[in-house]
Amino acid sequence: MNNEQVLLTQYPEGMPEDDTFQYEETELKEPQDKEVQVESIYISVDPYMRGRMSQADSYVEPFEVGKPIESHIVGKIIQSKSSQFQEGDIVLGNLPWKRINTVNEEDVDKVADTDVPLHLYLGTLGLTGQTAYHGLLDIGRPQEGETVVVSAASGAVGAVVGQIAKLKGANVVGIAGGDKKVNYLTDELGFDVGVDYKKGNFAEALAEAVSNGVDVYYENVGGEIGDEVFKHLNRHARIPVCGTISNYNNPEDDQGPRIQSTLIKKQAMMRGFLVAEFADDFENAGKDLAQWVKEGKIKTKVSIEEGFDKLPQAFRNLFTGDNFGKQVVKVSED
Amino acid sequence: MNNEQVLLTQYPEGMPEDDTFQYEETELKEPQDKEVQVESIYISVDPYMRGRMSQADSYVEPFEVGKPIESHIVGKIIQSKSSQFQEGDIVLGNLPWKRINTVNEEDVDKVADTDVPLHLYLGTLGLTGQTAYHGLLDIGRPQEGETVVVSAASGAVGAVVGQIAKLKGANVVGIAGGDKKVNYLTDELGFDVGVDYKKGNFAEALAEAVSNGVDVYYENVGGEIGDEVFKHLNRHARIPVCGTISNYNNPEDDQGPRIQSTLIKKQAMMRGFLVAEFADDFENAGKDLAQWVKEGKIKTKVSIEEGFDKLPQAFRNLFTGDNFGKQVVKVSED
Repeated sequence: MNNEQVLLTQYPEGMPEDDTFQYEETELKEPQDKEVQVESIYISVDPYMRGRMSQADSYVEPFEVGKPIESHIVGKIIQSKSSQFQEGDIVLGNLPWKRINTVNEEDVDKVADTDVPLHLYLGTLGLTGQTAYHGLLDIGRPQEGETVVVSAASGAVGAVVGQIAKLKGANVVGIAGGDKKVNYLTDELGFDVGVDYKKGNFAEALAEAVSNGVDVYYENVGGEIGDEVFKHLNRHARIPVCGTISNYNNPEDDQGPRIQSTLIKKQAMMRGFLVAEFADDFENAGKDLAQWVKEGKIKTKVSIEEGFDKLPQAFRNLFTGDNFGKQVVKVSED
Repeated sequence: MNNEQVLLTQYPEGMPEDDTFQYEETELKEPQDKEVQVESIYISVDPYMRGRMSQADSYVEPFEVGKPIESHIVGKIIQSKSSQFQEGDIVLGNLPWKRINTVNEEDVDKVADTDVPLHLYLGTLGLTGQTAYHGLLDIGRPQEGETVVVSAASGAVGAVVGQIAKLKGANVVGIAGGDKKVNYLTDELGFDVGVDYKKGNFAEALAEAVSNGVDVYYENVGGEIGDEVFKHLNRHARIPVCGTISNYNNPEDDQGPRIQSTLIKKQAMMRGFLVAEFADDFENAGKDLAQWVKEGKIKTKVSIEEGFDKLPQAFRNLFTGDNFGKQVVKVSED
């Protein structure tokens, strides 16, 4: 006892409601040789996890029903039977949703620098930042003066994509929902234009924002927003496809104009990717990202839900647009 | 007089019927300095020409209404005021649909070798062969032992794609319509498997044919055939998109499953292209193709309609499946 975990009860249809998640008291396991006990501080919720709540063909193993959900967690070592870690060390790992995890020393890594807000290791300084970096720079390859469009632009990945594109000299157009998010793109992140997909004039506003056409479209949402952007591709446009969050809760119904004839007309390239493909370059990219964060060139917005009981709600926020920036759940003090 | 040409009367809706084409007698123009008179022997009809019969955004200029339709033509010099050509030379050019064209010496090129059937310069030894070659090798990049699927496989481009893929050691699956075409793929072209999209069990037959998954899908048709192939992509699959002939006559109605989530799951790449992008490498590729043709490693099937009056019908054959292999029209003796 003295520990708590969150199990997946079933593979949900549509939006995962509260009955998808089961809170359960559980035993606190004492660490054995080479094990550490990690108290969770920040737990990440990420859109890709919806794919793991399904047995449909996906790129990651489904979560197991009746077992704890997993995600990236920043935590503090509270007991160590490992020579590599001391009590108080701040670590990161892909761990079960438990207040306290007792795991092998190889399941966690020390964070590089504890002088930055720790939730950044779940966002800009973690896989989120790596996803933005590699999708944009290795697939999108924006050139100075080109136009880069990013959807879900105020989201964890999109905000970093747009800021890196600016650093590379591109003209950057972000698509987001609502005045607050759209204004944030231009006022705080330095995007050139923000376009509100929730407004009735979205198509016209987008057309105006990309009057020179679109050279790189960093795709985070899919659906009708993607369809609209594809109308403006320039010759030799590149489309890194990172996510299609618009359909994660209803994948069967993702019908729209087929893309092939557009790709021919524009001699354009579309490439789906997973950040894990770029693992060999994480270290270099991580240095760039840390440098940019320290210099204030990449800013991060974070939505923090407080409390271990808020995990289901925080996860749903990703799909309802109720989050703003990277969504995390804070479950103990850092 | 003494000449005849075919004008475009209107931008057709749907299939171009006979009233899209107007035959007209016209004056035979005498060649001036640096001009040649070319008697058409073989006139090419190609699917991309449907795009030129429309003002919709495309990658080639629309044909002008009231002006002659143009395509690649192999002809014989019958009068020359050019030091570069003699009477009897066999030449190739992108020329108006006339029995005899009087054009500048720069508008035509001598063919490399008159010992091969001349219609090959409209097919395997022309842009058709180049299209197959570059789409497959520069974008698809098949590796030995990988599975390559090509649609419209008995068509002018598809047949060459499949045969080159075999030369590169791939396992090759061709999709075509009807027993005759499907058997041709395996019996005469050396494909490993042919799948008939017109049969009710197409989905099952395809699944069986690509039981190791699809590493390269050379897309010629789009529509539901493409949708079905996408279900079998392997990780890091490549999809050169050459054409979408299934929708050339009704481009507004091209709706289907959006591709983005599939591309992510498979970390796959889709790239639309035009053969003109590879012009710098036409000479090298042309040597390879000529070599393979001479060695009998690439065979060509040609559908020849005889007579200048058969141009509209030959063009429609491309969309009805009534052609078999490269479609040309023979308008005089070679």
